[in-house]
Amino acid sequence: MAKELTNREENYSQWYNDLVQKAGLAENSSVRGCMVIKPYGYSIWEKMQAQLDKMFKETGHVNAYFPLFIPKSFFSKEASHVEGFAKECAIVTHYRLKNSPDGKGVVVDDDAKLEEELIVRPTSETIIWNTYKNWIQSYRDLPLLINQWANVVRWEMRTRLFLRTAEFLWQEGHTAHATKEEAIEEAEKMLNVYATFAREWLAIPVIEGVKTANERFAGAVETYCIEALMQDGKALQAGTSHFLGQNFAKAFDVKFLDKTGKLDFVWATSWGVSTRLMGALVMCHSDNNGLVIPPKLAPIQVVFIPIYKTSEDLNSFRNYISGLVANLKSKGISVKIDDSENQKPGWKFAEYELKGVPVRIAAGPRDIAGGTIEIARRDKLTKEVIPIEKADEYINELLNDIQQNLYNKALEFQKHNTSEAENYEEFKLKIEKGGFVIAHWDGTTETENKIKEETKATIRCIPLNEKPCPGKCMVTGNPSERKVIFAKAY
Amino acid sequence: MAKELTNREENYSQWYNDLVQKAGLAENSSVRGCMVIKPYGYSIWEKMQAQLDKMFKETGHVNAYFPLFIPKSFFSKEASHVEGFAKECAIVTHYRLKNSPDGKGVVVDDDAKLEEELIVRPTSETIIWNTYKNWIQSYRDLPLLINQWANVVRWEMRTRLFLRTAEFLWQEGHTAHATKEEAIEEAEKMLNVYATFAREWLAIPVIEGVKTANERFAGAVETYCIEALMQDGKALQAGTSHFLGQNFAKAFDVKFLDKTGKLDFVWATSWGVSTRLMGALVMCHSDNNGLVIPPKLAPIQVVFIPIYKTSEDLNSFRNYISGLVANLKSKGISVKIDDSENQKPGWKFAEYELKGVPVRIAAGPRDIAGGTIEIARRDKLTKEVIPIEKADEYINELLNDIQQNLYNKALEFQKHNTSEAENYEEFKLKIEKGGFVIAHWDGTTETENKIKEETKATIRCIPLNEKPCPGKCMVTGNPSERKVIFAKAY
Repeated sequence: MAKELTNREENYSQWYNDLVQKAGLAENSSVRGCMVIKPYGYSIWEKMQAQLDKMFKETGHVNAYFPLFIPKSFFSKEASHVEGFAKECAIVTHYRLKNSPDGKGVVVDDDAKLEEELIVRPTSETIIWNTYKNWIQSYRDLPLLINQWANVVRWEMRTRLFLRTAEFLWQEGHTAHATKEEAIEEAEKMLNVYATFAREWLAIPVIEGVKTANERFAGAVETYCIEALMQDGKALQAGTSHFLGQNFAKAFDVKFLDKTGKLDFVWATSWGVSTRLMGALVMCHSDNNGLVIPPKLAPIQVVFIPIYKTSEDLNSFRNYISGLVANLKSKGISVKIDDSENQKPGWKFAEYELKGVPVRIAAGPRDIAGGTIEIARRDKLTKEVIPIEKADEYINELLNDIQQNLYNKALEFQKHNTSEAENYEEFKLKIEKGGFVIAHWDGTTETENKIKEETKATIRCIPLNEKPCPGKCMVTGNPSERKVIFAKAY
Repeated sequence: MAKELTNREENYSQWYNDLVQKAGLAENSSVRGCMVIKPYGYSIWEKMQAQLDKMFKETGHVNAYFPLFIPKSFFSKEASHVEGFAKECAIVTHYRLKNSPDGKGVVVDDDAKLEEELIVRPTSETIIWNTYKNWIQSYRDLPLLINQWANVVRWEMRTRLFLRTAEFLWQEGHTAHATKEEAIEEAEKMLNVYATFAREWLAIPVIEGVKTANERFAGAVETYCIEALMQDGKALQAGTSHFLGQNFAKAFDVKFLDKTGKLDFVWATSWGVSTRLMGALVMCHSDNNGLVIPPKLAPIQVVFIPIYKTSEDLNSFRNYISGLVANLKSKGISVKIDDSENQKPGWKFAEYELKGVPVRIAAGPRDIAGGTIEIARRDKLTKEVIPIEKADEYINELLNDIQQNLYNKALEFQKHNTSEAENYEEFKLKIEKGGFVIAHWDGTTETENKIKEETKATIRCIPLNEKPCPGKCMVTGNPSERKVIFAKAY
């Protein structure tokens, strides 16, 4: 290996940290809890952004940009929102520095204190609904379907690269509707967009569901979510979509004239995914050799590495592959030729395994003489030698196959690590092993908290699209309408 | 008009403010100095971003992301940088709010005071060079060619939408090089990218030059800039590219081993353009009817408006144009059909003029009977009736023609408003009328400041690619190597 990774089975958490840093995805910065997203990591995020942005636009949304800062008083306007959000945050109190009296550096100028403190946005419902107030008068102004790509800050105490950082990048959709039904439909539609993106692009199987009251977004009437299972058996919330009812419209007095001339409050949704998806991607597919990136999101899909001794060998390699490279590029496949002379082929092989490049192609004098190339796939770590004239089509199919195989493998893992528990003892045993555990719950926050205290497991979601199956709560024996999904979670 | 604009000739400044808001580009927010970029404005910015990002990548750059916050002490490390930058800024001092003792809202928790204050980035040289320290050891790690798309905050006292706001969006390139020559080449290359983008996409003619010491970026050895002339005769700095020497490498102790094994400080550049370009776009081309957007940046390039009385008319309009619409779309032209029944054609005509849509197509029963359509071009406000079967090709050429015409018109304006002054009296008369005034200057900051105090004009740049022509300073009579360009500026 070019750079040694901690073994995944020995210490999953350390393996993850090593991998994120050594593969060049991100690193911690000098600012507590804030990360630097390095070029290779950012290029994967750009691919995610591009696809999500396309899907948002195809569903009728447009982008806009709202201020980074939110006046402190805005948070107090929606009662449950302030409880859930405005506490651990970055607070701007002053707007000027001055030279230090001792001549060394700068100090805060006490004369430049803000009348009202500004909060660096942890999420933008309040500032956006304060703006929507002026944009919405009548049903003709609705629906308003707006998305924002932005950075947000939540002053988390314990941070981990991508999974939980003080500053992170995300998109937040904020929509306004004339009816309750339409808003619920929107929240569900965007959950579906996220689920489709997770399955088809991240190659991550997800369970769609709604959160319990306890786990709901602060200010939401209903929080929809997609939940994924990581290789260590812990769940990760990969995206949420909220039906906000009229809560923010009431807090910011946003009313509209409906078709009958009646004045009513506007209905709202909000929905978001973040750079946390980068963490999910790493934790779901990667192995002890490094990253495994699904082809659809790989910045480099195919890497070519020459096996050579002399500079004539190197030249004939370049000539040999040039037609294939051109063909792949014409199909929109991103290709890198690493013919640098600084490193040996073995080092390069390890390096691109670490970087998770889906397909690696090598060719040496013997391949060239025989008209073949060696094709290695990152997901299975297998190799094949095939005639170069067939490589074009073969690689194209291979990329699709890798994408599908990663999803299938993750789905298999999820199924294998999902079980039902009939009683609390069985539940405790199963949850200790990890994975999703499905069980009856009586619907109370009290029981939910008791389970969390005793087992560290939370209700990940009440799954959608499953019919009710009445039973008894595994803890209290009280009636339960349906089973819910538990897991220990990130 | 759908929404009345202030007349440009009466009050240029008010005309600009009206236009930005009424055309739906941006508006002021509840947070002092921070703007909301509205969907239509943001969609133009997205087009700018996409093209710039492509040009950056074509010149070998990659994107990354660095923290929003910068520790206060970082600014003190580069002496001139702290003088120029860290003063008027947003300062984060606390990280938690708590419930107010009176039960009303939230207050800052004094127990949650940061040990060291964090500055919301006004620009990222310091945090990035602090990071580069760990990324650069040898000449093999160079050049490092990184760009960041981000929001930044400078606590401006007097703000104007897009032109000067407390928070704005921009890109900032930060590159590291092994030699001085290579860094200078990079700074000049990126200035050229900006100039090309301004000319070919914004349709704005720009003058490339270097700033005087006085106007240089804080921490730069040389600041290159592009300067544009607005319709009111004021100049606008549209982009800057800085050769930073080894200043930041020295401040953050970033050294590398060169090919000979010698340790040296790294050479740097930084370069940026911002949402200020949106202001330039509006001020350069628009008129009393509204925005005029160059076709290459127009979110809607062609709008179709039906002239009709009955719903049969409307249906036959839809059928009539469907083939043309499909043809235009297949050429990548963005088309909108406004067949909404809420508004009359006249209202729509005015609305799309206000929005600056380059080409407007109308057709009514008589056109349909005759096989023609009416095509109006936004830049000249002229109309033509042409056979629909020729429209496809005609429109494609028309879009190119409009793009070129806007540039030519702006270039004509710039030439007409650029003059030379032989002495200070002549200079004062000319500068009062606006435009670029070219004159001899003795090269001292003292004289520069005197001119600024007496005339409000600043040296916009010392133009590049012009040969020296010795003469005498118009103010002091001292020797001058070359003429420089003055203007009053935004």
